[in-house]
Amino acid sequence: MSLRHADVVVFGSTKPDDVPVSWIKPGATIISCARDLLSVQCLYFSEKHNYGQQNNPAAEKTVGSLAVAMRMQNMVKNMERWIQSQQYRKWDLHCLKLQPLSPVPSDIEISRAQSPKAVDVLAKEIGLLTDEIEIYGQTKAKVRLSLLERLKDQPDGKYVLVAGITPTPLGEGKSTVTVGLVQALTAHLNINSFACLRQPSQGPTFGVKGGAAGGGYAQVIPMEEFNLHLTGDIHAITAANNLLAAAIDARILHENTQSDKSLYNRLVPVVNGMRGFSAIQLARLRRLGINKTDPETLTEEEISKFVRLDIDPSTITWQRVVDTNDRFLRKVTVGQANTEKGFVRQAQFDIAVASEIMAILALTTSLQDMKERLGKMVVANDKKGEPVTAEDLGVTGALAVLMKDAIKPTLMQTLEGTPVFVHAGPFANIAHGNSSVLADKIALKLVGEKGFVVTEAGFGADIGMEKFFNIKCRASGLVPSVVVLVATVRALKMHGGGPNVTAGAPLKKEYTEENLQLVADGCCNLQKQIQITQLFGVPVVVALNVFKTDSPAEVDLVCKMAKESGAFDAVPCNHWSAGGRGAVKLAQAVEKAANQKNSFKYLYSLELPIVEKIRIIAQKVYGAQDIELSPTAQSQVDRYTQQGFGNLPICMAKTHLSLSHQPERKGVPTGFILPISDVRASIGAGFIYPLVGTMSTMPGLPTRPCFYDIDLDPITEQVKGLF
Amino acid sequence: MSLRHADVVVFGSTKPDDVPVSWIKPGATIISCARDLLSVQCLYFSEKHNYGQQNNPAAEKTVGSLAVAMRMQNMVKNMERWIQSQQYRKWDLHCLKLQPLSPVPSDIEISRAQSPKAVDVLAKEIGLLTDEIEIYGQTKAKVRLSLLERLKDQPDGKYVLVAGITPTPLGEGKSTVTVGLVQALTAHLNINSFACLRQPSQGPTFGVKGGAAGGGYAQVIPMEEFNLHLTGDIHAITAANNLLAAAIDARILHENTQSDKSLYNRLVPVVNGMRGFSAIQLARLRRLGINKTDPETLTEEEISKFVRLDIDPSTITWQRVVDTNDRFLRKVTVGQANTEKGFVRQAQFDIAVASEIMAILALTTSLQDMKERLGKMVVANDKKGEPVTAEDLGVTGALAVLMKDAIKPTLMQTLEGTPVFVHAGPFANIAHGNSSVLADKIALKLVGEKGFVVTEAGFGADIGMEKFFNIKCRASGLVPSVVVLVATVRALKMHGGGPNVTAGAPLKKEYTEENLQLVADGCCNLQKQIQITQLFGVPVVVALNVFKTDSPAEVDLVCKMAKESGAFDAVPCNHWSAGGRGAVKLAQAVEKAANQKNSFKYLYSLELPIVEKIRIIAQKVYGAQDIELSPTAQSQVDRYTQQGFGNLPICMAKTHLSLSHQPERKGVPTGFILPISDVRASIGAGFIYPLVGTMSTMPGLPTRPCFYDIDLDPITEQVKGLF
Repeated sequence: MSLRHADVVVFGSTKPDDVPVSWIKPGATIISCARDLLSVQCLYFSEKHNYGQQNNPAAEKTVGSLAVAMRMQNMVKNMERWIQSQQYRKWDLHCLKLQPLSPVPSDIEISRAQSPKAVDVLAKEIGLLTDEIEIYGQTKAKVRLSLLERLKDQPDGKYVLVAGITPTPLGEGKSTVTVGLVQALTAHLNINSFACLRQPSQGPTFGVKGGAAGGGYAQVIPMEEFNLHLTGDIHAITAANNLLAAAIDARILHENTQSDKSLYNRLVPVVNGMRGFSAIQLARLRRLGINKTDPETLTEEEISKFVRLDIDPSTITWQRVVDTNDRFLRKVTVGQANTEKGFVRQAQFDIAVASEIMAILALTTSLQDMKERLGKMVVANDKKGEPVTAEDLGVTGALAVLMKDAIKPTLMQTLEGTPVFVHAGPFANIAHGNSSVLADKIALKLVGEKGFVVTEAGFGADIGMEKFFNIKCRASGLVPSVVVLVATVRALKMHGGGPNVTAGAPLKKEYTEENLQLVADGCCNLQKQIQITQLFGVPVVVALNVFKTDSPAEVDLVCKMAKESGAFDAVPCNHWSAGGRGAVKLAQAVEKAANQKNSFKYLYSLELPIVEKIRIIAQKVYGAQDIELSPTAQSQVDRYTQQGFGNLPICMAKTHLSLSHQPERKGVPTGFILPISDVRASIGAGFIYPLVGTMSTMPGLPTRPCFYDIDLDPITEQVKGLF
Repeated sequence: MSLRHADVVVFGSTKPDDVPVSWIKPGATIISCARDLLSVQCLYFSEKHNYGQQNNPAAEKTVGSLAVAMRMQNMVKNMERWIQSQQYRKWDLHCLKLQPLSPVPSDIEISRAQSPKAVDVLAKEIGLLTDEIEIYGQTKAKVRLSLLERLKDQPDGKYVLVAGITPTPLGEGKSTVTVGLVQALTAHLNINSFACLRQPSQGPTFGVKGGAAGGGYAQVIPMEEFNLHLTGDIHAITAANNLLAAAIDARILHENTQSDKSLYNRLVPVVNGMRGFSAIQLARLRRLGINKTDPETLTEEEISKFVRLDIDPSTITWQRVVDTNDRFLRKVTVGQANTEKGFVRQAQFDIAVASEIMAILALTTSLQDMKERLGKMVVANDKKGEPVTAEDLGVTGALAVLMKDAIKPTLMQTLEGTPVFVHAGPFANIAHGNSSVLADKIALKLVGEKGFVVTEAGFGADIGMEKFFNIKCRASGLVPSVVVLVATVRALKMHGGGPNVTAGAPLKKEYTEENLQLVADGCCNLQKQIQITQLFGVPVVVALNVFKTDSPAEVDLVCKMAKESGAFDAVPCNHWSAGGRGAVKLAQAVEKAANQKNSFKYLYSLELPIVEKIRIIAQKVYGAQDIELSPTAQSQVDRYTQQGFGNLPICMAKTHLSLSHQPERKGVPTGFILPISDVRASIGAGFIYPLVGTMSTMPGLPTRPCFYDIDLDPITEQVKGLF
C-alpha cells in the first residue's frame, strides 16, 4: 500500500466535498474512502503533516489512544480495500442511445440531435475526482496532471494507434474509425476505452475542410465546440508564439540603437536604489560562464557579453502565427513604420498549429518538462553561428505562464457518451502529427489494465505512424499494443490506377461502380503499409471504412488480400452510418490482437548520424533507392551536428499523397532518389525536420470558403452550416 | 404575474437539478418554486406544451381533475410569492475576510493569499440559476443572456460611473476605486453591488503595464486569471477580426485572377447536380436589387454585379490584429509570396482590443444585435466609392459563430468575495473605452432596485465619461445615477505646475512632500472635470485616492475645493491599503448621491452635422476655442455624410494626458484650436471617430519587458512576477 503521495486522506461517511477547505493543503490529493467506518465521523490523516488536529480541536478531544490504534488498523484494512477498488474495473458508464437515420444527416445535425451528458457526470463515471477536473461550460473539462501522480502505480491499459494507407485528398476517415472503435468497445462490448484526438486548427474550419470531430454516427459532440475555440489551447499557443516573435525583433532593435551601458541600465535597472538580476538573467550569466550575482561587479566586457544576444537577422527561424487561413501572410515585410528606424526584414506567418510550441505541447510529459523545452527552443543564430534560445531572450517563464492551462487535456464525449481527450494538433509534415503524450498517459491510467486507449496519427502510416513510433513513443516511453490501419476501396482503386480524385469535384464512375481489378492492383499500397507496421514489431488490424458504393465482392477482396499480406485481421466497418454497432467486429479483432506477442522496436538508433537516420527512413519506410541532400541541407546537417543536436530523432516533412516525394506517384513507387532540399530543427520539441520539397505552412481561403454557409441562430444560439 | 416566457416551471420540494433532463425542453427556463407544496412531489407545467405527461405516466395517474384545480390555485399563489421573492432582496452573500498587512504586499501576493469562493457558489448567492451560468474552471463563469429575459420586468439598480481627472502617466486608480467601492458597499454596508470592469489586453501584461485587476486590497481575484486568457473573449475577437481580414485580401486576389463566369461557378457551384445560393448570397442579391433566387436565371450583367465586390485596395480600413505588443507589425507589406501573384499591399496590425469587433462587443445588446452590427462593419470602399461590408463578403454568420461565447459576460469576484463582471475592453481613443452594455444590464437586474452597479470609463472624464454618456448610454438606454470622479494629490500637483511624472523614473520631491500651493493650483483640473460632469445633469462624488505621502492638509484641501466646485461630496479613500473598509465613506456618499434628483441628458443631438457635433465636444468639454479640420478630415466627413452615416455619435481619438490635444498642457488649457487630422468610422460599432493627432494602435516591448520577472512554479503551478 502506498500513501507516499497523499497529503490528505479522508475517511468515514463523508465525501471529499464535505471536508472544510481550510483543512486541505493546496495541491493535496483527497481520497474518499469506504463508508462503513461508522464510528468515525470524519477522521483525516496525512503522512507528512496532521493538518486536521490544528483546526479541529473537537475531533482531537474525542480520539483516545486505544481508539486511535483501532482506527489505524481499520484504516489500513480500508486503505487496502480502497486500493484494490482502484484497480481495473468496468466503468459504470451511462451510454447514450443512438438511433441512426437513413440517409445519414449532416454531421452538425447528428451532433445537435444528441444531448451530451454533463461533463462532470462523465468525469465521475470514469473515476476522476472532483478536484482533478476544471469544467469549461457544460460539455468540456480540463483534466489536471495531478492524476498521473495519484495513479502512478497502476498498470496502463492497451495502447492502440490508428493510422492509414496513403490517402486520397478526401482522407480515409481515421478520426471516424478512432471514434467508432471506442464507441464499439465501450458502448457495445462494455470495455473501458478512451479516444485521444488532435484538436483541429480553426483556420480550415472556415476555409475548405470543415469539421474534424469524426463524422456521421462516429463523432465527438458537441462538434461545434470541438471545432471552434475548444478550451483555448491553440489561442494560448498563438499568444506564446507571438510574444517570443515580438521579443526577437524588439531585442534586435534595442541592441541596434543603444550602447552597452544604456542596454545594461535598462536590462538591470536601479529600483528603489538597488540593482538586481532577475532569476532568468542569473541563469544567462551562468551559461556565459560569468559567476557573479552583483550587477555592480561586472566588467565592461562581461556587460557587453551579457547585454548583446547579437542575433543575425538572416538566420531567424521563428515565425509569427495566426489561426486563420491567411495566404497574404505567407511572405511579408515587417518593421516598416518610422518608429522601427529602418530595421525592416522579410518574414512569414504560419498557421498556429505549425508553431513549435504546438509540437512541444504534444510531446511534453509534465509542466517542468514543458518549461525546459520552451526555454530550449532555438529561434536564430548569433553572428558567431551559435544558437539563440527563448531562454536567452528571458521569456521562458512568460511562455510557461501562457501555456499553463493548455497543458491539461480536454475531456469531451462521443455520440454514445464514451470519453474522449482532445489535446494538441501539431502539423503532420514539419512536426509529428500526433495528439498529446499527456492525454494518452492519463487515458491509459483511467481505462485500467484491461481497457483500451485509441490514439490517432496524421497522414498515412509511412509518415504519421513512423513518427508516432520513432518520436512520440520515444518521448513517452509507451509501448503500443496494436496498429489499426484504415483503408477505403476508393483509395485502393486510386492506387490501382484509377483516375485522379480531387476535393470538390464529383467522383469518376470507377469509384462508384464495382471494379475488382482496380482494387486488386491498388492493394499493393495497403500491403506496403502493413509491411511498414511490421518493421516496428506491432500487430496490425486493417479497418476497411465501407462506403455505400462499395460492392460486397470489393470488400471481401480487400480483407482477403490484407490478411494474406500479414495483417492479424481485416474487418469492414460501418460506424459512419451505424455508430459503434458498426465497428463491433473491428473492436473484437483489436481486442484479440492486443493479446498477441508484441516485439515493439524503434527503427533507428538516435546515435546514428543525421544523414544515416534520414536514409533508413527513406529506404525502409518509403522504399527509396537512396537520398540526395542539397548543399543547403548538407550545411544545415553539419551545423546542427556541430551545435550538438545530432542525436535527435528525425521528423520527415514529405507529402502524404505518395510514399515517394512525388504526390502523383500512387501505389508503391520504387527506384526513386528522395531529394532533401533543406534541414531544419525544432530543438524544444526535440527533432530535426528534413524538407522533402517545399511545405506550405499557411493554407489559403478558396473563392467560396465554408463560411458562406456558416451561421448562428440568434434565438436558439445554434450553429448552422458546419460539417 | 408573467409566465409567458417560461416553457417549464417546476414546483414542489424539488430543486431544478432533480428534474429529469428528458422533461425539459431545450432552452427552457426552469424555476424552482416554494418548498411548501407538500402534496406535490414534482409537478411541472408549461404554457405551450405539457412535456411531463408524455414522459411520466405515473404522475399523470395520480392527478385527478379536482386535485389539478387545487394545485393550480396553489400554483398561482406560489408563483406570486415567488415573483415577490425575486424583487430586491439583500443577497445572502458569504463575504471573504480580509486582514490587510502593512506594508502592503505585491498584488499577486495579496491575490494568492486569498482563497476565492467557488464561482458556482457565488453565482447562487447572487440569484443566478444553475442553467444561467457556464463554469470555466473554479473561479470564472460565463453568464447567459437568457437572464435578461427572465428578469426583464424587474426594476434596475442604481448605476454608478467611475471616471477620473486628467491623469498622470501612472494613472489615478479608477479600477481600484471601482473595486474598493463595491467591496465597501457589499461587504461592509450589506448593500447588493456589482463591479463591471474591462478585460485588459494581454499584450501590455508582458510589456510594461502589468495587471489591471485593481490593486492592493481592492482587486479582482485570482488576478492572474483576470490578466491572462480569462474566458477567451479577446482570442475570439482576434479570430473573427483576422478571418475578415483574410477574406478581404483573398477576395481581391480571386476577383483579379478570375473571369466573371469562373467566379460565379465557384461562388455558386453545382453540388449533386444542383446550383443554389446560400442565405447570405440571397441577401446580397436583394441589396443589389436582383430579385431572383434561381442561379440559372441571372443575366451576364447581374452575374458580374453579384460576383465582383470591386474593392479599391487603397481604401481598406480593416486591419489584422494580434494580442501582443509587437511594434514590428505597425507597418508591414503583405502578399509577397509568389502564390499571391504580385498583389502586394501595405497594411498594419493593431493590438486586438483596437478591433472594431471589440467595440461592438462592448456596445451590443443581444446576439441578434451583435450579428447585425458585425454584418454592417465597413471594411473598404469599392471603386465607385460605395462602402463594402462584412456582409458583402459573406462572413457575417461565421463572425457571429466565433463570437457566440464572447458575448456572455464573465463572472469573477473581489478580494472580499463580492461579484464582478469582466467583459469587453475597447480602446479609449479610437473606440469608447467602456466595459460592456450587457454586463451592466445583467448586473443592474441582479443587484435589484436598491442595489448598485459600478462601472468604469477609461482615461479622464473628458474622454471616457463623455463617451460613456453620449455613446454607451445611447446604445443601452440606461440612465446613470452618480459619477464618481477619481483624483490623486499627485495628479493635482502636476496640474498645479509640478515637474513631469514619467513611468519608471523615481518621483520628484514635490510629489512626496507636502505642497499645498501646487495642490490648490492643480484643483482647476478637478473643477473643470466636475463641470463637465454637470453638463450631463448627473451628481458627482469626488473620490480622492490617498497615498501614504499625502498630508492630511493636502487631503482636506482637495475635498474642500471639490465641494466648492459643485461636487455632491468629496471623500478620501484607503481601499488600496485597507480593502472595502477604506472606502466605506465613499460608499455612503455614493448611496446618498444616488437619491438626488437626476436630470441626465446627452450633450448633442445625433441629427446635427458631424462637424457640429465635433465642435460641441471640443468647446463644451475640452474648452477649445474652435476646431480645424484638415482637407482629408473634411473629405472623409463629406464621404460619410453622403454614405448615410452622418447621424452617428462621435468618438474622439484624443490624448488623455491633457484636456487639449497637447499632452504637455496640464491644468485647464484655454484658447486652443483643436486640429482634426482625419476622420474614420466604425459603422458596426456605430460611431464616427475623428483623429486629433496620430493614435498608436500597437504598443511595443521595452528593452526590459515585464516578462523577465514572470515565471511559473512547475510544482505548485503558481504564477510569479505579475503585478
